[in-house]
Amino acid sequence: MTGFVSFVSSGPGDPELITLKAVDRLKRADVVLFDDLASGPVLDHAGAGAERIAVGKRAGRPSAKQEHVNALLIEHAQAGKRVVRLKSGDSGIFGRLEEEIGALLAAGIRYEIIPGVPSACAAAAHAGIPLTRRLTARRLQFVTGADITGGLPETLNWAALADPGVTTVVFMGKRTFPDLARGLIAHGLPADTPAMLAEAVGQAGQSFLRSTVAELAEVLAGARTDHPALIFYGPLAPFGLPPGETGGA
Amino acid sequence: MTGFVSFVSSGPGDPELITLKAVDRLKRADVVLFDDLASGPVLDHAGAGAERIAVGKRAGRPSAKQEHVNALLIEHAQAGKRVVRLKSGDSGIFGRLEEEIGALLAAGIRYEIIPGVPSACAAAAHAGIPLTRRLTARRLQFVTGADITGGLPETLNWAALADPGVTTVVFMGKRTFPDLARGLIAHGLPADTPAMLAEAVGQAGQSFLRSTVAELAEVLAGARTDHPALIFYGPLAPFGLPPGETGGA
Repeated sequence: MTGFVSFVSSGPGDPELITLKAVDRLKRADVVLFDDLASGPVLDHAGAGAERIAVGKRAGRPSAKQEHVNALLIEHAQAGKRVVRLKSGDSGIFGRLEEEIGALLAAGIRYEIIPGVPSACAAAAHAGIPLTRRLTARRLQFVTGADITGGLPETLNWAALADPGVTTVVFMGKRTFPDLARGLIAHGLPADTPAMLAEAVGQAGQSFLRSTVAELAEVLAGARTDHPALIFYGPLAPFGLPPGETGGA
Repeated sequence: MTGFVSFVSSGPGDPELITLKAVDRLKRADVVLFDDLASGPVLDHAGAGAERIAVGKRAGRPSAKQEHVNALLIEHAQAGKRVVRLKSGDSGIFGRLEEEIGALLAAGIRYEIIPGVPSACAAAAHAGIPLTRRLTARRLQFVTGADITGGLPETLNWAALADPGVTTVVFMGKRTFPDLARGLIAHGLPADTPAMLAEAVGQAGQSFLRSTVAELAEVLAGARTDHPALIFYGPLAPFGLPPGETGGA
């Protein structure tokens, strides 16, 4: 009688950048729990009869408590439902997957994890930037720009973050980027290191701003919005936006 | 008359872990250039009439020269073909995308990049490991374990790599892991840091070996095979393999 939970990575938001396996799980779902960031056209892959429950946790907004999400997952699974827990990007990257999995394990509920296209990979592809480059960008790192308080995390590995031979992607770091940039430059990262702000990745209003670490910090000084954004810095490829037929910004 | 090149990320190899957009590009391709790692069932998405050209660059094997791949891309595009350049995982991560894009730009050929599911995300999802964890794994980094000579890269940022609060994924690092592990431990990473070897990710023979950094280094001492592998280390989640219906190792 006990149901089953599929943690489904929705990809960046573009309904064509979802995997076949994710579409299959959505089509067969009885219930879909989704975050704000994973909503929109991706949800259209779910059947008309599927119950859709918003449990958004957008940065800076009042959040549905994690305990509430856990309780919903368990309640629907125990009612014998096929539950899809939709998470944007790849669910394993800054998706807080472990908190929900822990709750399911404690309740004896079976689950699976369907990986997806990370938003960072989608943004880089659209901007024509390889995330690694032989010789110049041999390491790639993903970090979060905000801890649970919304401020810059207190324990940052500056030697790792200020490394000029690395592509770094900062998640949820728009408001804290001026502070981050100050620290990076103080720890030796050249102020003119290329940087790019990617906003609304995979959404209709997707946009890119190419700049440098120092200039982007100025642009973002006083940023208040919680609009989802990724910030890239490092030896970003000098290619322009690809002249592809997909168009876009 | 000039054609068009789509750099299509095939995902880890599981034909269900490819995106709808990648399937679309394969279906409409006149020519598909593929690496060994991206071959197999994923190629079945291409039409029966599409020309399939293997240009594999598997580590340790004699490689088709990059110049040859570039020339093939340009030749077919200039013949007016819709060319798909299939790359495993996400093409922007250790896919040497920049070399082929540079050649296309020089030849004035239009292109697009379709992102995909990185092999690291697929392996972690199947093993039930979130790549980031709040408080314990706030940074995620991807590195290559081998430079163009096949040895450990000479310039490694040990402060970044030996950070115990980070999930690290080493690509193509099976043969060099004993050397890497020695350096990590010398730079302060606890020898009993959890480690996992993932082999043939997304393929029929997919397997996982859970260990520690020190023990995995012993297991891999003398490894000669170039079998594709990923090595994870860091505060990997203590969850077992998910009891999901997808089964697998």
